[in-house]
Amino acid sequence: MTSQSIKRLLLGRPLKTSEAEAEKMPMWKALPILSSDALSSVAYGTEMILLELATVGAFAFSFSIPIAIAIVLLIAILIISYRQVIDAYPQGGGAYMVAKENLGMMWGRLAGVSLLIDYTLTVAVSISAGVLAITSAFPSSVPYVVPIGLIFTWFMVWMNLRGTSESGNVFALPTYLFIFCMLILVGKGLFDWLTGAGHVTHQVTVPTGLPAGLTWFVLLKAFSSGCSAVTGIEAISNAVPHFRNPSQKNAKRTMLTLGILLAVIFGGVTVLSRAYDIHPDPTGTKSVLSMVTEDAFGRGGFFYIIQFATMAILVLAANTSFNGFPILSSIMAQDKNMPRMFSNRGDRLAFNYGIITLGILSSILLITFRGRTEALIPLYAIGVFLSFTMAQIGLVLKWRREKSAGWQRKAFINGLGGFVTFCVVIIFSITKFEEGAWIVVVITPLLLWLITKISKHYDNVAKQLKVELTEPIPTTETVIIVPVAGIHKVVLSTIAYAKALTPNVVAFYVAFSPEDAKKMEEKWEQWNPGVRLVVVVSRYRTLIKPLVEFIGRVEHRYGKDKKLTVLLPQFITHKWWHRLLHNQSAFRIRALLLNRKDVVVSTVPFHLND
Amino acid sequence: MTSQSIKRLLLGRPLKTSEAEAEKMPMWKALPILSSDALSSVAYGTEMILLELATVGAFAFSFSIPIAIAIVLLIAILIISYRQVIDAYPQGGGAYMVAKENLGMMWGRLAGVSLLIDYTLTVAVSISAGVLAITSAFPSSVPYVVPIGLIFTWFMVWMNLRGTSESGNVFALPTYLFIFCMLILVGKGLFDWLTGAGHVTHQVTVPTGLPAGLTWFVLLKAFSSGCSAVTGIEAISNAVPHFRNPSQKNAKRTMLTLGILLAVIFGGVTVLSRAYDIHPDPTGTKSVLSMVTEDAFGRGGFFYIIQFATMAILVLAANTSFNGFPILSSIMAQDKNMPRMFSNRGDRLAFNYGIITLGILSSILLITFRGRTEALIPLYAIGVFLSFTMAQIGLVLKWRREKSAGWQRKAFINGLGGFVTFCVVIIFSITKFEEGAWIVVVITPLLLWLITKISKHYDNVAKQLKVELTEPIPTTETVIIVPVAGIHKVVLSTIAYAKALTPNVVAFYVAFSPEDAKKMEEKWEQWNPGVRLVVVVSRYRTLIKPLVEFIGRVEHRYGKDKKLTVLLPQFITHKWWHRLLHNQSAFRIRALLLNRKDVVVSTVPFHLND
Repeated sequence: MTSQSIKRLLLGRPLKTSEAEAEKMPMWKALPILSSDALSSVAYGTEMILLELATVGAFAFSFSIPIAIAIVLLIAILIISYRQVIDAYPQGGGAYMVAKENLGMMWGRLAGVSLLIDYTLTVAVSISAGVLAITSAFPSSVPYVVPIGLIFTWFMVWMNLRGTSESGNVFALPTYLFIFCMLILVGKGLFDWLTGAGHVTHQVTVPTGLPAGLTWFVLLKAFSSGCSAVTGIEAISNAVPHFRNPSQKNAKRTMLTLGILLAVIFGGVTVLSRAYDIHPDPTGTKSVLSMVTEDAFGRGGFFYIIQFATMAILVLAANTSFNGFPILSSIMAQDKNMPRMFSNRGDRLAFNYGIITLGILSSILLITFRGRTEALIPLYAIGVFLSFTMAQIGLVLKWRREKSAGWQRKAFINGLGGFVTFCVVIIFSITKFEEGAWIVVVITPLLLWLITKISKHYDNVAKQLKVELTEPIPTTETVIIVPVAGIHKVVLSTIAYAKALTPNVVAFYVAFSPEDAKKMEEKWEQWNPGVRLVVVVSRYRTLIKPLVEFIGRVEHRYGKDKKLTVLLPQFITHKWWHRLLHNQSAFRIRALLLNRKDVVVSTVPFHLND
Repeated sequence: MTSQSIKRLLLGRPLKTSEAEAEKMPMWKALPILSSDALSSVAYGTEMILLELATVGAFAFSFSIPIAIAIVLLIAILIISYRQVIDAYPQGGGAYMVAKENLGMMWGRLAGVSLLIDYTLTVAVSISAGVLAITSAFPSSVPYVVPIGLIFTWFMVWMNLRGTSESGNVFALPTYLFIFCMLILVGKGLFDWLTGAGHVTHQVTVPTGLPAGLTWFVLLKAFSSGCSAVTGIEAISNAVPHFRNPSQKNAKRTMLTLGILLAVIFGGVTVLSRAYDIHPDPTGTKSVLSMVTEDAFGRGGFFYIIQFATMAILVLAANTSFNGFPILSSIMAQDKNMPRMFSNRGDRLAFNYGIITLGILSSILLITFRGRTEALIPLYAIGVFLSFTMAQIGLVLKWRREKSAGWQRKAFINGLGGFVTFCVVIIFSITKFEEGAWIVVVITPLLLWLITKISKHYDNVAKQLKVELTEPIPTTETVIIVPVAGIHKVVLSTIAYAKALTPNVVAFYVAFSPEDAKKMEEKWEQWNPGVRLVVVVSRYRTLIKPLVEFIGRVEHRYGKDKKLTVLLPQFITHKWWHRLLHNQSAFRIRALLLNRKDVVVSTVPFHLND
């Protein structure tokens, strides 16, 4: 089986470029693929708020309601704002594009880097969280957290290498199951609350003043923790071109659907957590969501279905990143802000480099942090909110510049969103700095610097390569050097080849002793192939040093106007393992010559029969 | 820091071929380097005999004396025989050479393979044993048996890559310490025994008849177990050319010294074990040698010095193999019985391939058997005794053929040795088969088959390469194909280079859409470099497939008498990491073209400034 056919078996047949349209996503596929990240956050958003408030005391729990209202408002602002992004930038790219066009390239890079970091963290966090759900169910699997996480990660790499459309099929079902379960849960719970039925024990009140012991700082911290429920929203705006036509309209609709789902589920779960008077479990054994479910339905079959759906969507949230990261890096690569190959589509039209890079980076995170979700969470969300802020500010500038109809209203919405998300960034950076946010604060400028260097390099190369169409082709002459190891068939055919190209051919032989040198010279004279032989005696047992020295001498003699070519013969073996028996140094010599000298290195194959 | 200077720091400056003489070993260095394996065996030889006899009962211990006498006689026969090997084969190679010249190539290969397997096992066994000595002293290190073993292994790889002479300096001291300690121990013990002083409690008697319960089979098994004390003797005969001149005389002297040391130490320890009436500890916590030492000197400082020296020589025994394996494989490679590179000397004149191969193979053994000495021991010694047998039989045939003075005496000694060692092989294979000897019985013929294939391949290649000095150089013509990705400096210089070599130049462009194709054709016409451009539209996003197809078309058109050359431009970057930003596919295209087609692939470097 060849490596080609193995690849085909694993990934499917290569797709034509024209098949890209068929690979594009209808809305029903786009929603699960692009929003499992955002949806999964509601599984723990309420819990994050309650845990933060619990540090002051259970009396503070009633403040979860105004905080949830603020977050739902934030979601609304972001959804409206990102629908405006889709309108303005139908080619995708989201915050990167908006920042680049309106704030300048450096800010675009910053937005891009922030998002790329966050995508990577999302994979590690959500896979860790999903694996934890499994290990809670099966404690015997605890020692295998990292291996299980790696298997999930590379399963996603594999599915995504097969192409977006197919991975959508696999990932759609669990996402819809989760949405369905959550809507049933919120519906049943709210019905109970309004009718006073079931386990509802508590009055849901909105506090009016700040009680003693509760500070604005704690409230802001709880708010920013709850904002984790908002991460992942931007994925849709990055992926507009991947929607089936009319792509802009479909993307905006998907965005709206997602916003409503987020608001209903997150808001509903938060209200229910108050109605059932749920106190978060600081040991993390029972999640707030599971306690709400238990109070609403009891510990029956539906309880376990919800548990399963939650685990599934947590793992699938990683898939949103597997879509977002490759698309964003391909857009950045087109702008020369990432290595060029990130914009190449593979056989299956997927951006293989981005997918595999994300797999490697998140595997490193999984291994380094040993799959502990709580260690990764503080690193997470800064990047997303930084990119939110830049997208919003960028749009404000755009509206102000364009001054189209109703620009003040649009600018106000975006300005508000930009202000709020910027506050979240600041609060997050300060409150979570020691818990790990400092890593992001350090890595972001480093990556920004690297990306700037990459971009500069490509600019320099473009300058060096530029050619005027009127520039004449220079005429050069060539000297061919043929290193020989004796007199045999390969030398014969290489010399014949060289003589056909130019009369300036020199054979070069390294002898390890003077006797050896003399013998070779005599044999050469007898053979008389019409090519001069230069013999050098070397006291070391290597070809490369004398060859480099000899090239230097030839260069010196002919000056720079003659181009030097070195012919290196290479055995092409019939069976793969025969390769191990030949040519161990040819590869090294080739690389060294190309790097050290301005010579053309030609590989002349000699196909062995057996 | 370049990789060159790192290499220099680790391994030292490169040595000239003429410095090989200075790298050769004087006797005082050769003894520790080449005989630590054999010497270390006496640390456990007596114990192996007693453990085997203990399976019947303590009454059988008195039979250790006649068994030890038999083994000392065997040592004498082997030493005499191998001194004859040195005389007959001063170029080294030992059993391999003797068997090859007198029994034929296949038997030579068998002897060579057996020895190579045994060298590998020796490294694994003696390093495991040495590490066990450490872990017995520091029980907390038990979980790190394999990592410690690997560190020792690769320390030896490193020392040996630096060259024989320097590694001799490091390894000489512990070996001499061990010899010194053993001679003191045996001297003190025998003095006590003869004068009846110290802890001597027991009469040492030689039994005259076979008591009930003891069978000849058990005695033979004990004898073959004790024969482990004999392994390693052959190393000196393989390494004759590595001795300082007069190398033959020095090697023979070293052989004699080793024989006397082995006989005295092994015989002495066995006699003392009887005199002190020592019973082996079946749990392996206390070695027989340590019990003898304790009875002779008490548990004082000298006791611990001997323990340390024992541990050191067990680890160093591996070094004998690090000398033997590379030398033997280089000799076999010269006969085309091993891949060619095993005969290349590295910068420091060491046979790097052999040293590193041995390091890898023994690391695999260490990891697979998790460093358990007792699991490896039954695999060990078959190979050595098989090679002994073949060397002896080979010499018998040689003496019979040459019929020089006193040939009958020489042939009798070798014949006796051959018979005895062959018996050991048979007994060993049968009695240890289930304990692991079967692995060797399976692997040896497999390796023999592989080596025969390698040898056949080299013969075939030599036949294919053979050229008569009268053969004329054929005249060929060349067509050059220049794949282009656009119009820029690299294309300009590549086309200029191609035009200088031949008028038959075709540029080749893969367009990903018909519009792209048209645009390129128009631009090319405007530029007009005097070279025809062929444009192909591909619906896949790869260069390689259309290029291979195009080459096929050109081949078809010109027939086989024109040689095709493909010019591939390659960016040579200034900084190493810039390389990651270019040329990801050039390497793959080059390899594919060379393997699939009979074309010359030329790499035209374009050196980027930044």
